[in-house]
Amino acid sequence: MIISTMQQIREVIALIFLAVFTKAVNASKPYWWPSDTAAGYCLSWRLGVEANNIRAWRTVPAQCSRHVELYMIAGQYQRDVNLIVDNICSYVDGINVSNDGLDAWILDVDDTCISNLFYYGEKRYGCEPFDPFGFKAWAMKGVCPAIPDILRLFNKLIQSGFKVFLVTGRDEETLGQATNDNLSAQGFIGYERLILRTAAYKGQSAIVYKSDIRKQLVEEGYRIWGNVGDQWSDLQGEYTGSRTFKLPNPMYFVP
Amino acid sequence: MIISTMQQIREVIALIFLAVFTKAVNASKPYWWPSDTAAGYCLSWRLGVEANNIRAWRTVPAQCSRHVELYMIAGQYQRDVNLIVDNICSYVDGINVSNDGLDAWILDVDDTCISNLFYYGEKRYGCEPFDPFGFKAWAMKGVCPAIPDILRLFNKLIQSGFKVFLVTGRDEETLGQATNDNLSAQGFIGYERLILRTAAYKGQSAIVYKSDIRKQLVEEGYRIWGNVGDQWSDLQGEYTGSRTFKLPNPMYFVP
Repeated sequence: MIISTMQQIREVIALIFLAVFTKAVNASKPYWWPSDTAAGYCLSWRLGVEANNIRAWRTVPAQCSRHVELYMIAGQYQRDVNLIVDNICSYVDGINVSNDGLDAWILDVDDTCISNLFYYGEKRYGCEPFDPFGFKAWAMKGVCPAIPDILRLFNKLIQSGFKVFLVTGRDEETLGQATNDNLSAQGFIGYERLILRTAAYKGQSAIVYKSDIRKQLVEEGYRIWGNVGDQWSDLQGEYTGSRTFKLPNPMYFVP
Repeated sequence: MIISTMQQIREVIALIFLAVFTKAVNASKPYWWPSDTAAGYCLSWRLGVEANNIRAWRTVPAQCSRHVELYMIAGQYQRDVNLIVDNICSYVDGINVSNDGLDAWILDVDDTCISNLFYYGEKRYGCEPFDPFGFKAWAMKGVCPAIPDILRLFNKLIQSGFKVFLVTGRDEETLGQATNDNLSAQGFIGYERLILRTAAYKGQSAIVYKSDIRKQLVEEGYRIWGNVGDQWSDLQGEYTGSRTFKLPNPMYFVP
């Protein structure tokens, strides 16, 4: 009986040792490192999207649904936006703003100024295909929350003397009022113009439509110092601006 | 004694239960998710670099030394390159290659075709500032290994009838022979031209130099279908090609 008890004590000690040792090994492992290929695939997919290598995708790969959800809601998305905005602010600090009122900055609206995260949460964070009627109904409500770091940038730009132009692919006729009200309610106050898509641009790609809007601003004499959007189509084409900044968005792709 | 033994058995069972339960909780946790802000910062920094938001950086942030090391050597870098090359191959499959011999493709050399990982391992994966003499001595050895997925792409391009141009910022006079030998030894055989930096381009930025090279190719009649590099300066400027692909490189920045 004594031997048996000693044996059990040894087992307990061995188990405790094992538990402590395993914890030590885990602590020295890189926390963020994917431990299986599915997780690694989703990291690669997201990098491919953000670096503009993977294009014209319709839905988030099904196996990345949880990855994208956690990326968006558990802190990393916010950290990513925060660091980008810190970098934009450093750039802004280095610009000599003239007093002719022609130093301009362009911000996209959806998932740049205001967030559609709640809507996409209902669409499995982009695993379901784009639903134009569902999205329009959501946008009509005018309840998209501000993205805090972009609101911080917006206020800094205005205080620094930039004319801020909000340029969106949203339809002017049906969503103009709701978008205007949504932005004001969320604190985007003092911008120069909110430019929405008019009938003339219906059916055109974002690259063509937004290039044309920027061209008009340049022809009015504006110098576009910066251009911020969550889609590469906000930042490509012509008159893109002196610097462009790509915010992350792994939930949908706008051509 | 019997009570004490029973007690120990209960403890053993409780420990086993705890061990199994802990494992189950860990399995349902997102493996890749950073558990502290330093890790989150390094993920954000790397995303900022790859999406071209963070530019002109001289060294990897000191706190990201281990992050970058593990990213490069523990599998995720390879997975990222693999997925990009899969996407490039799908694009290549959709191109109708003409038989006039003018369908062209551009590949960068350093950390696109061949890897400098061993060299940068000695430089704390980019935490030390760029050392032009050290790098030149390394490149002279001609021992950079091929990046396997890019070699696969290279062979596919040549088999598909593309003229492949390797365009590098390496100095032609001092590194031409070593680079040529290194590429051949690593299996890069059958390309149209290896274009190195001549005296005329000395001191020019990669964007200006590589744009000029591409312009010459377009003037020779070539159609540049694709352009692959690990630096945004490979892919920006003029005559960039119908599509560009950014390979990851968190170790150094070339302006």
